[in-house]
Amino acid sequence: MRGFFIGRFQPYHLGHHEVIKNIVYEVKELIIGIGSAQESHTFENPFTAGERILMVSRALDEIDRELRKRVYIIPLEDIYRNALWVSHVCSMVPPFDVVYSNNPLVIRLFKEAGFNVKTTEMYNREEFQGVEIRRRMVEGRDWESFVPKSVAEVIKEIKGVERLREIVRNDRMYKR
Amino acid sequence: MRGFFIGRFQPYHLGHHEVIKNIVYEVKELIIGIGSAQESHTFENPFTAGERILMVSRALDEIDRELRKRVYIIPLEDIYRNALWVSHVCSMVPPFDVVYSNNPLVIRLFKEAGFNVKTTEMYNREEFQGVEIRRRMVEGRDWESFVPKSVAEVIKEIKGVERLREIVRNDRMYKR
Amino acid sequence: MRGFFIGRFQPYHLGHHEVIKNIVYEVKELIIGIGSAQESHTFENPFTAGERILMVSRALDEIDRELRKRVYIIPLEDIYRNALWVSHVCSMVPPFDVVYSNNPLVIRLFKEAGFNVKTTEMYNREEFQGVEIRRRMVEGRDWESFVPKSVAEVIKEIKGVERLREIVRNDRMYKR
Amino acid sequence: MRGFFIGRFQPYHLGHHEVIKNIVYEVKELIIGIGSAQESHTFENPFTAGERILMVSRALDEIDRELRKRVYIIPLEDIYRNALWVSHVCSMVPPFDVVYSNNPLVIRLFKEAGFNVKTTEMYNREEFQGVEIRRRMVEGRDWESFVPKSVAEVIKEIKGVERLREIVRNDRMYKR
Amino acid sequence: MRGFFIGRFQPYHLGHHEVIKNIVYEVKELIIGIGSAQESHTFENPFTAGERILMVSRALDEIDRELRKRVYIIPLEDIYRNALWVSHVCSMVPPFDVVYSNNPLVIRLFKEAGFNVKTTEMYNREEFQGVEIRRRMVEGRDWESFVPKSVAEVIKEIKGVERLREIVRNDRMYKR
Amino acid sequence: MRGFFIGRFQPYHLGHHEVIKNIVYEVKELIIGIGSAQESHTFENPFTAGERILMVSRALDEIDRELRKRVYIIPLEDIYRNALWVSHVCSMVPPFDVVYSNNPLVIRLFKEAGFNVKTTEMYNREEFQGVEIRRRMVEGRDWESFVPKSVAEVIKEIKGVERLREIVRNDRMYKR
Repeated sequence: MRGFFIGRFQPYHLGHHEVIKNIVYEVKELIIGIGSAQESHTFENPFTAGERILMVSRALDEIDRELRKRVYIIPLEDIYRNALWVSHVCSMVPPFDVVYSNNPLVIRLFKEAGFNVKTTEMYNREEFQGVEIRRRMVEGRDWESFVPKSVAEVIKEIKGVERLREIVRNDRMYKR
Repeated sequence: MRGFFIGRFQPYHLGHHEVIKNIVYEVKELIIGIGSAQESHTFENPFTAGERILMVSRALDEIDRELRKRVYIIPLEDIYRNALWVSHVCSMVPPFDVVYSNNPLVIRLFKEAGFNVKTTEMYNREEFQGVEIRRRMVEGRDWESFVPKSVAEVIKEIKGVERLREIVRNDRMYKR
Repeated sequence: MRGFFIGRFQPYHLGHHEVIKNIVYEVKELIIGIGSAQESHTFENPFTAGERILMVSRALDEIDRELRKRVYIIPLEDIYRNALWVSHVCSMVPPFDVVYSNNPLVIRLFKEAGFNVKTTEMYNREEFQGVEIRRRMVEGRDWESFVPKSVAEVIKEIKGVERLREIVRNDRMYKR
Repeated sequence: MRGFFIGRFQPYHLGHHEVIKNIVYEVKELIIGIGSAQESHTFENPFTAGERILMVSRALDEIDRELRKRVYIIPLEDIYRNALWVSHVCSMVPPFDVVYSNNPLVIRLFKEAGFNVKTTEMYNREEFQGVEIRRRMVEGRDWESFVPKSVAEVIKEIKGVERLREIVRNDRMYKR
Repeated sequence: MRGFFIGRFQPYHLGHHEVIKNIVYEVKELIIGIGSAQESHTFENPFTAGERILMVSRALDEIDRELRKRVYIIPLEDIYRNALWVSHVCSMVPPFDVVYSNNPLVIRLFKEAGFNVKTTEMYNREEFQGVEIRRRMVEGRDWESFVPKSVAEVIKEIKGVERLREIVRNDRMYKR
Repeated sequence: MRGFFIGRFQPYHLGHHEVIKNIVYEVKELIIGIGSAQESHTFENPFTAGERILMVSRALDEIDRELRKRVYIIPLEDIYRNALWVSHVCSMVPPFDVVYSNNPLVIRLFKEAGFNVKTTEMYNREEFQGVEIRRRMVEGRDWESFVPKSVAEVIKEIKGVERLREIVRNDRMYKR
């Protein structure tokens, strides 16, 4: 049995970490989709898909060094057409039996396509955490206690906080 | 040190297998890019990116069950603009130090961008093998001896030969 | 003489119905364009183009069973470039002599291209009605009295209200 | 019961006409998709979607003036991704129960998506006729006896033969 | 030495004029990029790239009739992917040695790509001026004293104020 | 009076040079469009738009150092939809009164849009020269006598011949 879980991971944080810790032991193989893979360098999406892949794989290693043998981490570009999105995902990743999500649109689209969907009870907290962590980065407050240790290291390596601060003057999403 | 290798893997065959067997032991981590990820259901590109990810990961397991811990298998959609292609790749995959390729365009584009490129001496044979294997599938001749055993199994599971035969009447590329 | 009228029809409602009832008898043939045809599954655009074609054609039948013999219902995908939009429309539909619209941008673009444009005096009401009806669907209030009977039936057949409610938690447009 | 039939109709000819004459009486409603709707002004696709809609609707009238009451003629832009094509079609047209086609790729894609597909025994002849008619137009030979009378009138109205001759010097497809 | 400066020029105003007056004498050749070239007919971007090229070249003539001999005015379409934007710019314009900008995102992207970037101290004022001038156009207040004389003439020639007023009822950006 | 002339300029050669020498003195201002601006690094289109802009502007200087004061050199990305191409061009360049071309498709599209088109009697030779010069570059034969002196210098500066030779093994267009 193979499961599918999708997030934007801007950045990967403890909310994602908890969910993945649980579901990775419910399935034989897990596909982790990196949503909005084409986005980067905005307040909403500061990190590239490649940087996010690095975060997810280091975080997996932190859980268990054997996990990556049975996890696929796959960037998924947006296609801007909801009616085609499930087909898009299915063409880009290996076949899967169950979808884990708490995002209402993801749940609806997979259900309309006849998939087995399990809700993860994390959605609001997850969305909240992503924005909150990015705000903390911009404002110079503590953000490291919200992400796995290995993820904090990746963000420092790529000078992620510096990038976020520099671009944010330009970013309406933050100003609102 | 991290290396980057790209192929279309239509299908993954013994030519790819030999190259990967060598380079995977030269680097600490290897990124395998699945080129033309958005293509499927043509003679030139019969298999979806998801199906090709399955082929590559099973073939890696055949070499060594520990490999997937340090290999990233990442679908890369075409962007149809050569001058942007290296930036596209770099945004979608973790940072890498060396490119392995024998494709003249790939070599040229990465060299213009200042990358360290190592030629793999496989290009002609590789290109040839892909087309040849697909022809053999269409014509009902032996193709299984050209791919790793685990890849043959994937192709049978997804009824790949049947698909290729059915679409080929429509495909000019084959008729030429 | 052939006329052109465009709307998003999310959903088709009595405001559209009144306008079409009038103009369909002013022209020999009428083209009804379904705007933003590629959109679906959002609060702003919950229904697919196919579902909206169904609404429009059933509503036409409600006016007069003979109408569809001289009406073209044509989905029009957005092209995101205003300067090309009139050419886009003209390439997708049969030639027409007069444009019916109350949308300022549509009027301006067709006028700049030299078309004969008649204003329909419905715009504000129309825009208002679409949003209002969708809000009523989400909030469980009466919405059926704002659309033709046959359109309400289509929406029930496709479980449209259920879809709208499920996706709306995710949709910022509604939250604002 | 609703049926779906797709063609490029460059131009609509007697091959299409025969097929449609048969299937239109097998179903309650028929959807006729205009494929490659975004293409025009090439040897392969000389006519715009709008012009082709005009051909199809006039040809329907020639069969029976009542037909257009239960036929949908819908332009379908290419999406250049076979794995998403069925979802694309389904989002753009009303729901349908049966697909009529003799195109191997169309058949395969709808079958993989679980649709009921009926072959129309026309494919080779149809493909052949389209090219042959365009060649005849270019070379000044008889082409009118290959299309319904009303279609010949449309092509003359839009000066289609003149267009085809003027662009053809530029068109590699014809030179081959 | 060649310099690069980018703006949206909606419209070209005295803020741009001051900056260009300075930098055009610091470099041998200057490239002026017209950003969001594909946009037009909205409150945010009322003028086409062609119209903006006209504004910029007339304004250059106003500074010095010899300038256009060593200035390139080049429309740049958005690509909606920040990680590819510098490569996109570099493929569309002649090679350059220094970037002049005060836009935080532009500065960051060029710095990450290793370019020499000089800040122009104009950004806030520039952004402000663009919106302010368009508002004044809509509201019938004085706008001409904010742009070079030759630019005001271009805007009158193309009936720009009339266009802006007509489309603005439809434009949410303005309503907010 | 403003004229419009378009070419791909792969590379700019004496055929283009002759035409431009003539028409630049027939008009007050000339727009030179760089077609297929997004293409580069193929046998068909080896040079980027930026490199081609450099070729054209240097060649203009070779004719007359004052020319660039009244010539616009503008890259034009393909839009892959013939029916929209004239609108696309018109949105990207200043308004023009006359089109100079010998390309049948360009002539037809501008004529259908009601433009005044003058044929330049160069087309076959021009097309031929582009391919011929690129072949000569690949094969190490003389190519410099087919281009203006300043253009040969640009090509050497950017190591264009070296690029062309390296990519050509990969390029089917050349192999045919």
